[in-house]
Amino acid sequence: MVVPRLIERKRDGHALEPAEWTELIRSYTAGAVPDYQVSALLMAVFFRGLEPSELSALTDAMLASGERLHFDGWATPRVDKHSTGGVGDKTSLLLAPMLAAAGVAVPMMSGRGLGHTGGTLDKLESIRGFRTDLPLRVAEEQVRRINCALIGQTPEIAPADKRLYALRDVTGTVESIPLIAASIMSKKLAEGLDGLVLDVKTGSGAFLPATSDGLELARTMVKIGESRGCRVVALLTAMDRPLGRAAGNALEVREAVEGLRGHGPEDLMAVTFALGIEMLIVAGIAPDPSTARHLLRETIMSGRALERLMQIVEAQGGDPSLVEHPERLPAAAVRQAFESPADGVLASIEPRTVGRAIVALGGGRATIDDTVDPSVGFVFLATPGDTVAKGQPIVEIHARSADDAAAAARALSGAISIGGRADLLPLVSHRITVNGVERLA
Amino acid sequence: MVVPRLIERKRDGHALEPAEWTELIRSYTAGAVPDYQVSALLMAVFFRGLEPSELSALTDAMLASGERLHFDGWATPRVDKHSTGGVGDKTSLLLAPMLAAAGVAVPMMSGRGLGHTGGTLDKLESIRGFRTDLPLRVAEEQVRRINCALIGQTPEIAPADKRLYALRDVTGTVESIPLIAASIMSKKLAEGLDGLVLDVKTGSGAFLPATSDGLELARTMVKIGESRGCRVVALLTAMDRPLGRAAGNALEVREAVEGLRGHGPEDLMAVTFALGIEMLIVAGIAPDPSTARHLLRETIMSGRALERLMQIVEAQGGDPSLVEHPERLPAAAVRQAFESPADGVLASIEPRTVGRAIVALGGGRATIDDTVDPSVGFVFLATPGDTVAKGQPIVEIHARSADDAAAAARALSGAISIGGRADLLPLVSHRITVNGVERLA
Repeated sequence: MVVPRLIERKRDGHALEPAEWTELIRSYTAGAVPDYQVSALLMAVFFRGLEPSELSALTDAMLASGERLHFDGWATPRVDKHSTGGVGDKTSLLLAPMLAAAGVAVPMMSGRGLGHTGGTLDKLESIRGFRTDLPLRVAEEQVRRINCALIGQTPEIAPADKRLYALRDVTGTVESIPLIAASIMSKKLAEGLDGLVLDVKTGSGAFLPATSDGLELARTMVKIGESRGCRVVALLTAMDRPLGRAAGNALEVREAVEGLRGHGPEDLMAVTFALGIEMLIVAGIAPDPSTARHLLRETIMSGRALERLMQIVEAQGGDPSLVEHPERLPAAAVRQAFESPADGVLASIEPRTVGRAIVALGGGRATIDDTVDPSVGFVFLATPGDTVAKGQPIVEIHARSADDAAAAARALSGAISIGGRADLLPLVSHRITVNGVERLA
Repeated sequence: MVVPRLIERKRDGHALEPAEWTELIRSYTAGAVPDYQVSALLMAVFFRGLEPSELSALTDAMLASGERLHFDGWATPRVDKHSTGGVGDKTSLLLAPMLAAAGVAVPMMSGRGLGHTGGTLDKLESIRGFRTDLPLRVAEEQVRRINCALIGQTPEIAPADKRLYALRDVTGTVESIPLIAASIMSKKLAEGLDGLVLDVKTGSGAFLPATSDGLELARTMVKIGESRGCRVVALLTAMDRPLGRAAGNALEVREAVEGLRGHGPEDLMAVTFALGIEMLIVAGIAPDPSTARHLLRETIMSGRALERLMQIVEAQGGDPSLVEHPERLPAAAVRQAFESPADGVLASIEPRTVGRAIVALGGGRATIDDTVDPSVGFVFLATPGDTVAKGQPIVEIHARSADDAAAAARALSGAISIGGRADLLPLVSHRITVNGVERLA
């Protein structure tokens, strides 16, 4: 393998052989290929893309660079959900216990918040004592016992992806759809899944705002998963406004618990059910959407989903009483209303600005090493489409100080527009499977 | 300067600010920007190109990274010639003394052979004692004294270019026309020139075989030079066959001496004069081509060009008697005829294969650290277009051993085709100036 020749071939629009990708990733991980060659190759991939055979080989090579979860000989179907990231997106906190209660194993490895998007691990860690750094063997055992573990990506999972991602982050090669797809799928396939449901966000607050990019990412991930023996369905969902009413770690846990009690906000529950239905179907537990919907509703009505969340929290060292009493979760010192500056229709809440404001409040990360304050964030008292009056409180700001709250209010002024009409994306717009793209709205 | 943001902007098709290029190259040279970021940026440049303002800034930054020749207060015009590299191309050995004899200063920094192309430094070093590693101040003094110095690129010249080139060589980013142009021009502008004539080779043996690529490279270099106050003219010349009859270091010196005596092969002299005429005109010595041609011919007829070559050789530590008696230059132990395998027209001699065969004989470099045997090479007794008979000697092979000669003969079999007709590029096909492209043939 002569690396400069590989780079030139990719640069000139040719596909590399699967064996070349395998060898390249192995050599890179072993330190035998320098970063400067890999970054040039990644930039060539940015411009030229990857053939399906290359995508599979790259994903496999990253997967093979590390450990994975093993469930050999266990009949329970394993299904996970992955979101490309958004603001107020707490569907994982609902879906993991709901699916586990419905008889599906959910070995879920999540990420931390970065940039303007939140992360499931940060939300979970607002529950005192909750540990997300379980060793893989412990997580496997927990999944076999209570159908679910909610953990972080350990260093043993796809270390090649970790190194590649760090390199991409500083070389302008993050925004490549095939590289994003291979990175996500190498980690998801390490969970030993039978099925995977992808929540690909679209709209201004999404990592890839354009619908066409979201569709391409979805198609690419579906293709990789299916070629690896994992059933994959993707839904394109709206991230042109925050999902649900709460944004901020403890506030979102509280909203998730309300959802598991049957009192979740409509948009959050709609997206949660849309994803959960797909999960039950790829798991083979439900034959059709209406059965699936019934089963999911049943996990809530019976209290079994909430109970399962308490079991998970307890198993991972957290205080399950905080799930029963989420009002005891960390609370911010300052609560301040943000009032509508005018009469009219609340036309939009820009999620990217909201997400950045949460970071500024201390509730997110500018860099991966930042610590997160679980208590801060926003609760939206009105949502796009609502008619509001001047002076009406429309957002509750949760902050550490009055200064922070004032800064957050300034940010909200830029994020919220009143007047005109709300022109929102459909909550769930497309369904992407190995058979193609289905338009839902 | 946040380097990942710069990379992203170039990747997305935007021009960087001149000050950003300046800062980037300075930081890279100082070790503050890592190779892996620069290689990704270079790959983005490969795909997106460089705006004229970026090209100038990059060239200036590389030039400013090192030393340069200074001729302040000296009225003699300084002009150089640069070739993009070919097989049998010894025009520098003729032009430097001819122009010096005609009253033009030629501070010529040349390269070594690499790949299938020869290098002027290697040719000169076949003259016993000849030193090409003069310190810059010594070279300046020599130019002021005898109008010419023939030296290598010292480590002080454009060190940023040297580092970038080494990185490009291993990251698949060599074949970028703006990067090639900036690299060449940063070194040429370090010679303190008033004018520059570029010999851009085209055809199968050229670094860029396609005429369109050659034209683009020529236009790009002309633009950079003119924006830096250096008059630049480029000629597109044929490299679909070796230039002249001799290929190999000492053999080429001998042919150059024959040329300076008025007995050079027609094609070599045609290209030499075409370039020399442009050099005299950009120098302001001759007002028009026919005057320039006359002056050049006069340097040969009078013996002044040959005499000047002897002065240069002597000044740089070489034995000038070898110029008078080139038959005393290093000679190969084995001389063997290669015979035509058939009756017919000699249709083509593929220069790339010929160049590689010279490397295999020991007369060129596979890597920059290889040493070169000056004695080996080929003398072509017939050239494309000649009618040859089966068994007629058409090439004289100069080799170190019978085995080497046999291998060279096998290579020649692949390089030479007999039959059909010679379909050659015009020797000089285009003239490129700041005013545009003129088709000459």
